[in-house]
Amino acid sequence: MSLNKLVICGVGLIGGSLARALKATRTVKEVVGVGRSEASLARACELGVIDRAAVSMADAVAGADVVVLAAPVAQTPALLAAIRPHLGGNTIVTDAGSTKTDAVAAAREALGDEVWRFVPGHPIAGAELSGVDAAKVDLYRDRRVVLCPQPGNRREDVAQVRAMWEAAGARVSEMSETQHDRVFASVSHLPHVLSYALIAQILEAPDAALKFGFAGGGFRDFTRIAASNPEMWRDICMANREALLAELDGYLATLGTLRDLIDTGDGAGLEAVFARTSRARTDWAKQQEK
Amino acid sequence: MSLNKLVICGVGLIGGSLARALKATRTVKEVVGVGRSEASLARACELGVIDRAAVSMADAVAGADVVVLAAPVAQTPALLAAIRPHLGGNTIVTDAGSTKTDAVAAAREALGDEVWRFVPGHPIAGAELSGVDAAKVDLYRDRRVVLCPQPGNRREDVAQVRAMWEAAGARVSEMSETQHDRVFASVSHLPHVLSYALIAQILEAPDAALKFGFAGGGFRDFTRIAASNPEMWRDICMANREALLAELDGYLATLGTLRDLIDTGDGAGLEAVFARTSRARTDWAKQQEK
Repeated sequence: MSLNKLVICGVGLIGGSLARALKATRTVKEVVGVGRSEASLARACELGVIDRAAVSMADAVAGADVVVLAAPVAQTPALLAAIRPHLGGNTIVTDAGSTKTDAVAAAREALGDEVWRFVPGHPIAGAELSGVDAAKVDLYRDRRVVLCPQPGNRREDVAQVRAMWEAAGARVSEMSETQHDRVFASVSHLPHVLSYALIAQILEAPDAALKFGFAGGGFRDFTRIAASNPEMWRDICMANREALLAELDGYLATLGTLRDLIDTGDGAGLEAVFARTSRARTDWAKQQEK
Repeated sequence: MSLNKLVICGVGLIGGSLARALKATRTVKEVVGVGRSEASLARACELGVIDRAAVSMADAVAGADVVVLAAPVAQTPALLAAIRPHLGGNTIVTDAGSTKTDAVAAAREALGDEVWRFVPGHPIAGAELSGVDAAKVDLYRDRRVVLCPQPGNRREDVAQVRAMWEAAGARVSEMSETQHDRVFASVSHLPHVLSYALIAQILEAPDAALKFGFAGGGFRDFTRIAASNPEMWRDICMANREALLAELDGYLATLGTLRDLIDTGDGAGLEAVFARTSRARTDWAKQQEK
């Protein structure tokens, strides 16, 4: 696996970490950055995350092996539209967004007869930090990446994107975009909303300062993701609205059941649920260690 | 600060860690354990967490400086009733439970005219692990402990309990039991219920295995507390039912607001909430580092 020219659109934690990993393993010769902020691109150059900032989208895409979209997902349609006129040769376009149904729809709309080049992807890694300064060479080491290959994709292009992520240390799986969005609405998008909601509730309380003052380790872990980038998570919630609402409504039903057990003083019923979930969470953690 | 005889009722993570810290700092000469399980007490002796298991409650309490209740909180009334006949001299009784209104009520009921001896306390420390094997000498280092002194307490007894926790490395505050229970319903008990509920929801899903398989770092942190001890958390939810339900209903209202923003596609409104909460969580983390 070797790339001559890699383009990163949105050089933050996600795109920057990919660039760092591929440069460290000498998988790529040149990394070119595209972004909204000149200061941030200059910083990416200074840190050695990219080799140079593109002077235009034409300059960026010309002769690129792979273009990776790593900006907040609401920018995907505009980025694809800006890239489209410059596509040629064997350039592959992929993305690193947390939602995939919207990315597939945007690619169909924006790329037209070039849509065969677009291989949707999602690295399962992140942090509550964002921005290029947070980019880490090992962010993807032993982490999972999901690809959602499309019927129109060339087999070798999917293999190329897979090899790129594997070079960054990730384990790559494939699933449909619908399945992807349902799974991540449940295990990622919903927890973010729930975590944001707890902080929002405390901020509304008259004794917020006292509450924050006595919050301990459980609170710290539960709310770590509530420090996540607001724009990124706004975009994810909007892009995956349908699946997220379905999971949120399922959650409200489950929480309502727990509320009833507490309200009626059904300690045995509550303990049964806690015991089942505690065991499942413990088993999950053991699986993760493997 | 020096204790001749300390009694720990419930030698698990919480009681065992206190014993370890006080022994390590030579604050206590003898630690006597009381518990439901002989095997667990034998293990505590073997680990050096306690010096010996009590042969009876009379044996345990006789001549004790301090008796600490560190069992799941539903056992508080029965433990206090069992201790009562043997109280004498200057023996102080305190507890380490996560709920305080119920402990105060239980003490009034069970201790009668000995209730002046009971100084309610709550160390803000824990882990998803439980049991004496998880006990750590530094569990309370720089952690907070809340005492809820009662009108009938002797000032020197409150000072003694405070000094004991300080010897274990903790920073001690005081508040009323009502205030305590409201604060911890919000920042501890509710997050536990919310975390348990997410796992419960996933377990009900037909694609649970797939979801667990792709759960990442955000999920790991959000659900760490869902691995907590089921009996302990059943007891806490039952003991602090009223304050917990009030916080839970407040949370449902806040979550309902977020749901509406998602449902109506109000990205700007959603981003405003996320930005406010993200900032508050980041500020909180900075405060914690101090």
